[in-house]
Amino acid sequence: MNNTYFTRRTIRKYEARDIDEGLLERILTAATRASTTGNMQVYSIIVTRDPEMKKRLAPAHFNQPMVTEAPVALTFCADFNRFNKWCRQRDAEPGYDNFLSFMTAAIDALIAAQTACSAAEEEGLGICYIGTATYNAGQIIDVLELPAGVVPVATVTMGWPALVPEQPDRLPLEAVVHHEKYRDFTPSMIDDLYSAREARADSQKFIAENSKQTLAQVFTDVRYKKADNEFFSYKFLEAIRKQGFLKG
Amino acid sequence: MNNTYFTRRTIRKYEARDIDEGLLERILTAATRASTTGNMQVYSIIVTRDPEMKKRLAPAHFNQPMVTEAPVALTFCADFNRFNKWCRQRDAEPGYDNFLSFMTAAIDALIAAQTACSAAEEEGLGICYIGTATYNAGQIIDVLELPAGVVPVATVTMGWPALVPEQPDRLPLEAVVHHEKYRDFTPSMIDDLYSAREARADSQKFIAENSKQTLAQVFTDVRYKKADNEFFSYKFLEAIRKQGFLKG
Repeated sequence: MNNTYFTRRTIRKYEARDIDEGLLERILTAATRASTTGNMQVYSIIVTRDPEMKKRLAPAHFNQPMVTEAPVALTFCADFNRFNKWCRQRDAEPGYDNFLSFMTAAIDALIAAQTACSAAEEEGLGICYIGTATYNAGQIIDVLELPAGVVPVATVTMGWPALVPEQPDRLPLEAVVHHEKYRDFTPSMIDDLYSAREARADSQKFIAENSKQTLAQVFTDVRYKKADNEFFSYKFLEAIRKQGFLKG
Repeated sequence: MNNTYFTRRTIRKYEARDIDEGLLERILTAATRASTTGNMQVYSIIVTRDPEMKKRLAPAHFNQPMVTEAPVALTFCADFNRFNKWCRQRDAEPGYDNFLSFMTAAIDALIAAQTACSAAEEEGLGICYIGTATYNAGQIIDVLELPAGVVPVATVTMGWPALVPEQPDRLPLEAVVHHEKYRDFTPSMIDDLYSAREARADSQKFIAENSKQTLAQVFTDVRYKKADNEFFSYKFLEAIRKQGFLKG
């Protein structure tokens, strides 16, 4: 397999240079060749290139600068709208207004998203997933004019790398891979898996900057807080409901 | 980008030949280098190779033969268990027992899944996503002994192709790609987008075999029925709840 899988890092700073239309089309065509449930292709990809549209999208992504600075932002959506319309036009009554169908469509969207990312990275482009697509799905629905049956699940910014950061560490493979059955973690296994990460200078700096005692506290108390998670859970479920996926 | 993106097809028949341990490890390592929210790596991958475990998993996948015939089945799970354990061991109180955290972890799992698939296909391996991971998550949780905080979201079978089917059609790119804003579909756009698919001999055969009038009816009345979707929505939400993601 190509080496990009192993050398890649998330790119947050991009050159002013655009992505050629033909290259983007090849990347998106690659994405549409990936697996999709029953060949239904229940997802959509909204391409944002227009600076005005980037500006309007930015608040939904907490004004993270990648959204306005990248030449392209791609919003991958769970989408039963087109499929439902086709069914109704063909004397078929769709039954996709439920949570399972939302998940099916979200899976389709994410498979397409990651295929686009791998294909783009192989061409030397850099990508960044912006997690806020689920946080502020309602705002994104408004800005991109997504109809019922369509919910954003991932936003990816894409462009030519202007700044390539150091590759971040990852946990040892055995932290995520289990053989035959889930081997649950003992306290000493947790210590072993996280000790290298915790010892890193950047982790220590991160703890100090945030005035915390442990790296884990930076996550629970600063970056991904319970109250925020609960607030955005409520908002995301409301968006899924509003788009018609929690009826059945 | 490599040509596999464009030539790939889902592989459901595999040679008896195993996947070399080192190759599988490289594929899974590639997966762990893909994007993950805040570098939390809130997913896990359960590798099934043991014939006995495949037999036990099969009913959860409606006994689709790929599960027992493929040398390897990979179950990708949303997983906050390891992260929660780390937090608690480091005087940090995790707040990840909510729907947003489930989605965050599911997205991590699916990004890893599709990276593994692309990497494997580049090596000549064939893959098949088995949609039933979400349908019967509860059974899979039992068989793989997944603790609280862990929910399966995708199962992929992987092996050396024994039968390479014709490449299925895909809708024209403009069916899934929208520029700047969602351009909703008029009846004539739906006709245009689906006419080539509907005219195919295999579509006509599919309609006749199922005694239906339209291809859409094969989906709504046979393959992905409303009553089934609602039943499995309920079951999947119960599994998510049981694993502790709908508390907050």
